[in-house]
Amino acid sequence: SRSINLAVIPGDGIGQEVVAEGLKVLSAVLPQDVKLETKEYDFGARRYHATGETLTDADLEQLKQHDAILLGAIGDPSVPSGVLERGFLLKLRFAFDHHVNLRPSKLLPGVATPLAGQPEIDFVVVREGTEGPYTGNGGTIRKGTPHEVATEVSVNTAFGVERVVRDAFERAQARPRKKLTLVHKNNVLSFAGHLWTNVFNTVAQEYPEVTTDYIHVDAATIYLVTDPARFDVIVTDNLFGDIITDLAAAVSGGIGVAASGNINPSREFPSMFEPVHGSAPDIAGQGKADPTATVLSVALLLRHLGYDNEADRIDAAVAADLTERAGKPARSTSEIGDALAVRVAG
Amino acid sequence: SRSINLAVIPGDGIGQEVVAEGLKVLSAVLPQDVKLETKEYDFGARRYHATGETLTDADLEQLKQHDAILLGAIGDPSVPSGVLERGFLLKLRFAFDHHVNLRPSKLLPGVATPLAGQPEIDFVVVREGTEGPYTGNGGTIRKGTPHEVATEVSVNTAFGVERVVRDAFERAQARPRKKLTLVHKNNVLSFAGHLWTNVFNTVAQEYPEVTTDYIHVDAATIYLVTDPARFDVIVTDNLFGDIITDLAAAVSGGIGVAASGNINPSREFPSMFEPVHGSAPDIAGQGKADPTATVLSVALLLRHLGYDNEADRIDAAVAADLTERAGKPARSTSEIGDALAVRVAG
Ligand SMILES: CC(C)[C@H](C(=O)O)[C@@H](O)C(=O)O
Ligand SMILES: CC(C)[C@H](C(=O)O)[C@@H](O)C(=O)O
Repeated sequence: SRSINLAVIPGDGIGQEVVAEGLKVLSAVLPQDVKLETKEYDFGARRYHATGETLTDADLEQLKQHDAILLGAIGDPSVPSGVLERGFLLKLRFAFDHHVNLRPSKLLPGVATPLAGQPEIDFVVVREGTEGPYTGNGGTIRKGTPHEVATEVSVNTAFGVERVVRDAFERAQARPRKKLTLVHKNNVLSFAGHLWTNVFNTVAQEYPEVTTDYIHVDAATIYLVTDPARFDVIVTDNLFGDIITDLAAAVSGGIGVAASGNINPSREFPSMFEPVHGSAPDIAGQGKADPTATVLSVALLLRHLGYDNEADRIDAAVAADLTERAGKPARSTSEIGDALAVRVAG
Repeated sequence: SRSINLAVIPGDGIGQEVVAEGLKVLSAVLPQDVKLETKEYDFGARRYHATGETLTDADLEQLKQHDAILLGAIGDPSVPSGVLERGFLLKLRFAFDHHVNLRPSKLLPGVATPLAGQPEIDFVVVREGTEGPYTGNGGTIRKGTPHEVATEVSVNTAFGVERVVRDAFERAQARPRKKLTLVHKNNVLSFAGHLWTNVFNTVAQEYPEVTTDYIHVDAATIYLVTDPARFDVIVTDNLFGDIITDLAAAVSGGIGVAASGNINPSREFPSMFEPVHGSAPDIAGQGKADPTATVLSVALLLRHLGYDNEADRIDAAVAADLTERAGKPARSTSEIGDALAVRVAG
């Protein structure tokens, strides 16, 4: 009999609320014969304040036992900027080698967008997750003096670039339009840019059916608002991916509906799924948060574990719910979760 | 009697056409007593193909003699990516210490924007121009092998950050809303992020009238499409500035109207003014290019040289022209230049 052994990290702020709805929908969609086991972990601001810990080696050992991880949101104004980001979120991505950071963007009918004319938006960003300027390389000399020098080193390896580029080609190949765009800044960042471009062009030869192109990251932000329909699959560096996926989320319905997966495709370590939004402490505990992004992250999680049918049912339920929402009064976090749970079960 | 000794670099593609209109408007707006001298330089793809040179030390010596530089656009598909960018554009910015890269964004009434609801947009980005990931620091080992490692080093100095932050505070102080936003990614790029944040907060104490805030670059792209009115002056790093100013141009009328200045505020070296757009080889020589961005760059140039009144007249002429354009058939490059020249003279 099948089973899913899930680590649940509600985290801070609205994380608790949205994760509860994600689990509600997950339980509702799973067939009877699939045994769902969940274990909750208390990472985030409270644990940090209580113990000074963000993510210990022992924590990592425990998390490793799970099939996947569902995360709500981590972060609170009471914790200095960077502590939980570096100490928890990035530490986990690096420890579990989450090199494929998957962020789909799809504008559904009726969903509000800041763009005029309700353009067609349906693309996926494959963001590299373990290299680039995120490695923590760099340093500071003469800190706090008028002669301070601070450096940040972007580290890019053929190994790291090739595996994520290959993953993106596989995803492009599996989609109807079969188009893959490399986003970088190879005219200025020429060392990393040459590596990315060269690997991209080399791997492309193995995927003759996939149409490819290249655009600079600055130009990509223009296309994301003037012609988002030009994108099918995008592959990009860790930092460029961070920036363009927030913009992509904004134009395709907002971060309330943007899901993401931090994926280790080899399954050597559990992958982690989380909404793109943060902990939003200003609306925490009020039942105002939209759990849709978390529910869509659950769909990514199910697809990663091979439950494609269940993932499709969640996507369809969300699409129907979003279309119905338009013009209606706002519902609470749990009302949206309930509605989605009913739909996926039905 | 007053004089302006201007270096003119038409460059590639549409550069020739738009610069001609920029000069037309400049001549029309200058009072009789100001002697305008111009000298044209042939930098760009043709010179590179003919001589292999992009910008020599002798060229720099010549350019130094001028009060300012007006550039059209540099770049052509026949030249490998990076050659003219590193060999000309960035070389000039670094050689003449153009540390203030000024990029205003203003959405004028009637001007088309991809955003719904014609939001209010009127802000200026002060982008650092001589540090960050643009320094060319970094390198490659085992190039072309499966073990290649490529690095890019972002270099940030207290000296370099403070002078651009100070410039941005001065500009914010001089504007009615007096608001300055620092855009960085200090939760991940913590070495550079700490330096930027610390310098920003320290200099802020000298400008008690200026309201300040901080946002991460990823979130900034969201606000640029959902709430651009929140911005007044933005100060940011070289790479983040590159990315967000293309997005800013896109939402505030497109790159056809986006101007920029590469400024050396100490006037030790001539500053350079150029449209944000590129050389657009696909429409070159057809009279289709919009010279407005170049004309607005001429206004920035005049303001830099102390001709505030003339700069204001150009801005007003462009605003009137843009408002009148809406819904009318497209005019040619020179028709737009002629109309603007008439307006500024009148
Ligand atoms: C919180 C931060 C470390 C993170 C990132 O920069 O990757 C976030 O912005 C994201 O996109 O998941
Ligand atoms: C052409 C390139 C070197 C340049 C940059 O990245 O600065 C351009 O994108 C710009 O914004 O002026």
